Amino acid sequence: MQNRFWRIARRPEGTDFSSALELVEAPLGPLAEGEIRIRNSHLSMDAGTRLWLTDREDGYQPPLPLGIPMTGLVLGEVTESRAAGFAPGDLVRAFGQWGEVSTVDAVMSGALKLDPTVPDRRAWFGPLGMNGWTALWGIERTGAAKPGERVLVSAAAGATGVLAVQIAGLLGCEAWGLAGGAAKCAFLTGELRIAGAINYKAGDVGAQLDAAGGFDVYFDNVGGGLLDQVLTRMNHYGRIAVCGLLADYTGGTRTTPREFDQVLMRRLRIEGFFSPDFMHEGPALTERLRRWHEAGDLVMPYDVTTGLENTLTAYARLFTGGNIGKVIVELEP
Amino acid sequence: MQNRFWRIARRPEGTDFSSALELVEAPLGPLAEGEIRIRNSHLSMDAGTRLWLTDREDGYQPPLPLGIPMTGLVLGEVTESRAAGFAPGDLVRAFGQWGEVSTVDAVMSGALKLDPTVPDRRAWFGPLGMNGWTALWGIERTGAAKPGERVLVSAAAGATGVLAVQIAGLLGCEAWGLAGGAAKCAFLTGELRIAGAINYKAGDVGAQLDAAGGFDVYFDNVGGGLLDQVLTRMNHYGRIAVCGLLADYTGGTRTTPREFDQVLMRRLRIEGFFSPDFMHEGPALTERLRRWHEAGDLVMPYDVTTGLENTLTAYARLFTGGNIGKVIVELEP
Repeated sequence: MQNRFWRIARRPEGTDFSSALELVEAPLGPLAEGEIRIRNSHLSMDAGTRLWLTDREDGYQPPLPLGIPMTGLVLGEVTESRAAGFAPGDLVRAFGQWGEVSTVDAVMSGALKLDPTVPDRRAWFGPLGMNGWTALWGIERTGAAKPGERVLVSAAAGATGVLAVQIAGLLGCEAWGLAGGAAKCAFLTGELRIAGAINYKAGDVGAQLDAAGGFDVYFDNVGGGLLDQVLTRMNHYGRIAVCGLLADYTGGTRTTPREFDQVLMRRLRIEGFFSPDFMHEGPALTERLRRWHEAGDLVMPYDVTTGLENTLTAYARLFTGGNIGKVIVELEP
Repeated sequence: MQNRFWRIARRPEGTDFSSALELVEAPLGPLAEGEIRIRNSHLSMDAGTRLWLTDREDGYQPPLPLGIPMTGLVLGEVTESRAAGFAPGDLVRAFGQWGEVSTVDAVMSGALKLDPTVPDRRAWFGPLGMNGWTALWGIERTGAAKPGERVLVSAAAGATGVLAVQIAGLLGCEAWGLAGGAAKCAFLTGELRIAGAINYKAGDVGAQLDAAGGFDVYFDNVGGGLLDQVLTRMNHYGRIAVCGLLADYTGGTRTTPREFDQVLMRRLRIEGFFSPDFMHEGPALTERLRRWHEAGDLVMPYDVTTGLENTLTAYARLFTGGNIGKVIVELEP
């Protein structure tokens, strides 16, 4: 049986993914002990995976080698299993491959059997997925947000940001979002009804932040120059939870905060976090997220692209700010 | 009665303090209710006070206005009191004035009656003073150093650094120091017997750090380029306790970490701290420090300059790296 998948041919420059990734076809081999095979129904597009494509040794993990299939979170049904606890027909989420089929070691890939009664399985990527865990952890643990505090989230219309602002509100905070464009801001204040949204593409961000007032927690997905704008508007003893540095991922620049000394002047805490570090708390996080989600208090818009061959277009949208909510590739059955 | 004191005439450039501060004489007025008068025996020279001389609104506190006496920690005997709990003859420490006499509000100045039986009263500036509190708090609380961890301290031969490396050792950590010059390093490894010292003025700091191995805690007094060198050598989940940014105080530069993204890659925590924030825990901190100090496990070399007229020479040494240990001006009786 053949599998079509995206292979890493070269290191990408910026957002030119079509020169770096190529759609190829290869036969599927037999399963090794401990492996499962998944017929992917959905691929999750996540900005963090961009780091794995870069030839940089001091990232989260060593770069993915050239020549292998691109790795990412997938949803789908198990078609074949040589791993205990997994049987054909099971709905699973795993770190698999951008292809029609994922072949993974059940343990190494973090494969998780999912409750198939959840009405929209895509929720396992968003509110009930890694984005949900990340948003909850970053607001509550790393950001240590307390009821009544003022919380600002960057890339607030992105998958993690959408959840982070809602969770901040659910935890009794006043939630604000930074987003690029009027449509995103309207979504945040209109549909999500958060306290305020700041369009960093319109006018003077500093003046808009000044008008908003100081923040106790900054959940940062972006880094770059926005971080400097926020550093000088943090309240004393504020916390900055660094979830991502989107500004660095494709532009070849690096976040170098010019206002770093505010860490001392305002006694701020800046801390990076990363979901694989708290996988063991995943079930407890999911339970809380699911309660909010089922009550309709934690919603997620999906930005869906159909067809494996259109994956790179969907992926690029993460870096050009084209999406509201979770970017997903839906594969044709 | 006349008082001689250092008056802030202009904002200093770099370490040219003699153009900014002038030694003047003025009559002492009567005490207001709540005030005490102290015959200063010693002045504490502290790098952090340099910030108060700068015309920058976003520092710790508003800049000291021009025309007033320079403020700093002083030791001495009370000569006159209109404050409850203070009587002539009491030995006190307070935020007073760089002069022969300090006139302060007992509460606002944080005036503290000291045990006169401590053999060397200068200890109230060092191990039993603000430097001691800062070192203990930064290592144990902000740095959250745990036994067995590897702790690196910058400006390790400075007053706070000398205490921080010793306290790290007393708490069961492996203590390393960064210092400028062979004499300071020899002092750290020889007299203080810490695990290792790195001379950042000699050769390749990066290579020396690589040879030392990763660190779990960085107690940073300096900022600047050294911070970048250390950021890429921190162990995952490491903590950087930002005590000072000496590199910024006189050079007109600002610490802008180029390796900031290591916060995310290594999930580091960077946090600023400042002793007035934990004044209320001072007595408990002092008690622990005093036990170590009396047992001979927490020592401090003093860099003493005699005579009020020589104050600026002593002060400048903080910024040119001329001192080992606590810089003090001793006034002639």
